[in-house]
Amino acid sequence: MSEGVRVAILGATGAVGAELLELLATRSFPVAELKLLASPQSAGKMLNFKGEPLTVEAVTSESFRDIDLVLASAGSAISKAWAQTAVESGAVTIDNSSAFRMDPKVPLVIPEINPQAIATHHGIVANPNCSTILMAMAAYPLHREQPIRRAIVATYQSASGAGARAMTELKTQARSILDGKAPPTEAFPFPLAFNVFPHNSDLSDNGYCQEELKMVYETRKIFGVPDLRMTATCVRVPVLRAHSEAVNLEFDAPFPASRARALLADAPGVTLLEDWQANRFPMPIDAAGQDDVFVGRIRQDLSHPCGLELWLSGDQIRKGAALNAVQIAELLLRERGLRPTAAATENLVRTE
Amino acid sequence: MSEGVRVAILGATGAVGAELLELLATRSFPVAELKLLASPQSAGKMLNFKGEPLTVEAVTSESFRDIDLVLASAGSAISKAWAQTAVESGAVTIDNSSAFRMDPKVPLVIPEINPQAIATHHGIVANPNCSTILMAMAAYPLHREQPIRRAIVATYQSASGAGARAMTELKTQARSILDGKAPPTEAFPFPLAFNVFPHNSDLSDNGYCQEELKMVYETRKIFGVPDLRMTATCVRVPVLRAHSEAVNLEFDAPFPASRARALLADAPGVTLLEDWQANRFPMPIDAAGQDDVFVGRIRQDLSHPCGLELWLSGDQIRKGAALNAVQIAELLLRERGLRPTAAATENLVRTE
Repeated sequence: MSEGVRVAILGATGAVGAELLELLATRSFPVAELKLLASPQSAGKMLNFKGEPLTVEAVTSESFRDIDLVLASAGSAISKAWAQTAVESGAVTIDNSSAFRMDPKVPLVIPEINPQAIATHHGIVANPNCSTILMAMAAYPLHREQPIRRAIVATYQSASGAGARAMTELKTQARSILDGKAPPTEAFPFPLAFNVFPHNSDLSDNGYCQEELKMVYETRKIFGVPDLRMTATCVRVPVLRAHSEAVNLEFDAPFPASRARALLADAPGVTLLEDWQANRFPMPIDAAGQDDVFVGRIRQDLSHPCGLELWLSGDQIRKGAALNAVQIAELLLRERGLRPTAAATENLVRTE
Repeated sequence: MSEGVRVAILGATGAVGAELLELLATRSFPVAELKLLASPQSAGKMLNFKGEPLTVEAVTSESFRDIDLVLASAGSAISKAWAQTAVESGAVTIDNSSAFRMDPKVPLVIPEINPQAIATHHGIVANPNCSTILMAMAAYPLHREQPIRRAIVATYQSASGAGARAMTELKTQARSILDGKAPPTEAFPFPLAFNVFPHNSDLSDNGYCQEELKMVYETRKIFGVPDLRMTATCVRVPVLRAHSEAVNLEFDAPFPASRARALLADAPGVTLLEDWQANRFPMPIDAAGQDDVFVGRIRQDLSHPCGLELWLSGDQIRKGAALNAVQIAELLLRERGLRPTAAATENLVRTE
């Protein structure tokens, strides 16, 4: 791999695609060749990589020939449609969609937490849900010290989780409302500007939406605790690109806030942001455009002797998506030279 | 009292003051005389009551002479400064500030929950904190059926909680950001538009802010459960005037969501808003300007066999403040003809 990696970005024109381009450049990922793939509607668009213009191509069955690494961020349906082709072409796919995350044959990886899981991959590595990554980054350093017994999460999720179009719509909505006009609702089912609403992903029979179930199931898989007791309420708030979360953690024994603070101050990828004098804790405007997850307001839970309350903000597009994917690619490159195992030729792709 | 009640509104020029004027008119409260009181800076302003212009007066020690009822909503310091004077003048004060809420001699009342508490008043009745009222309205109908063992709340609080000036500032901030300018931060310590931040009320030594502690302590007092296990994370979101809350409730035995739904559908002051087909649940834009607290997304807690998750939105200025105060006044009028007990002449006002 000394010549570098031949990379394809599937979904290059989206919000995460743009961030992937930026991160491959700024992190000096050894890119030998870069192919930008998207839907036929986006083909022909020009994007920049390290100052060089690149043309976006429509994805076809030939797109993955002579590609080593696919960074896929074009939604679940596109990933399901193309991942098998990419694997058969010999590329490793790091998939940002939910398509393969719960597939037992696909590792679901946050490099700071479960890098070892990557060893079992068969051509696809899944990037977890954004809210899940941010919460896990704050919870895992504590969980490693003392297993979490129960977690109760409430999210404050930005427009970026619904893509670039949603971010634009939030701004358009805000301006409409300020001007006394009805806000457009195309990307979102309801007005988000000056409003909040429960996350609009599909509802399950148990009343939880998919976003909430992702957090529960994916955390169990990432932490390797299949019966972790967890619940979440996911809510969209009128913020552009960073998510925040209120996290209540319960342990088997008291967990001193001071110890949690020390662990999080040392945790890679985490910035402890607590200025008690100034009443200053993580905010989306701190996290936007940053790599780290910002954690603070760590306090002993008034309602439970073994509980901790904490608060976090993290960039949904960066650590919540693109950065984690690039970190997985860096890990693959370091550990394995990016080659899938021999088993990669098996049909491993779930295509329900 | 057949001639009606002589009412003074202390803090008439604020956001809650405006709503009190509106509610006294629309609810046909028997107002015989109405005096609008505010700080000297606001004296001389003209406000309307039932189409009639009224001049705002600066509050003085003479202001409460021949007044039966004071509706105070000018903040804790003003309430502490004037409540004793009002009591000594023979008026009953319904105080919207936090000044007297935890005073054991002062009833803290939500008319749908603990109307009986009013019987013990000595001239002051306290109106609870806005987030507390909204949460309690949803939780109490369940608590009455089966005592709550533990409650974990995360709030999504609107700008209105910080007053009319903060609502204006949120709009100004949004416009500034849309125009690429730095947002002004006078009413708030940080930008609220396109951002969220933990509630900026004073922090206690245990790391909780006053807003969170109010919810815990006031709920215990209103429910009459001094050791209720409760925790809260209070967060400001860029919404104009309705608060939302994610509420996790734990009971001693399983509480069927269907039963909770039936109880809340019947609860006075509560509207059950759950359209599972349309993924449509309470939002601030539903609640703004409405009397009821909107509750929905009731689901069995995935993390606890005896847990329930629910979501609510309620108008912070209306049921969270002015409406509850007027309902207390209506209750006093109905039950007691508004007269305080003989004990009212004792010095009952805490003046720390």
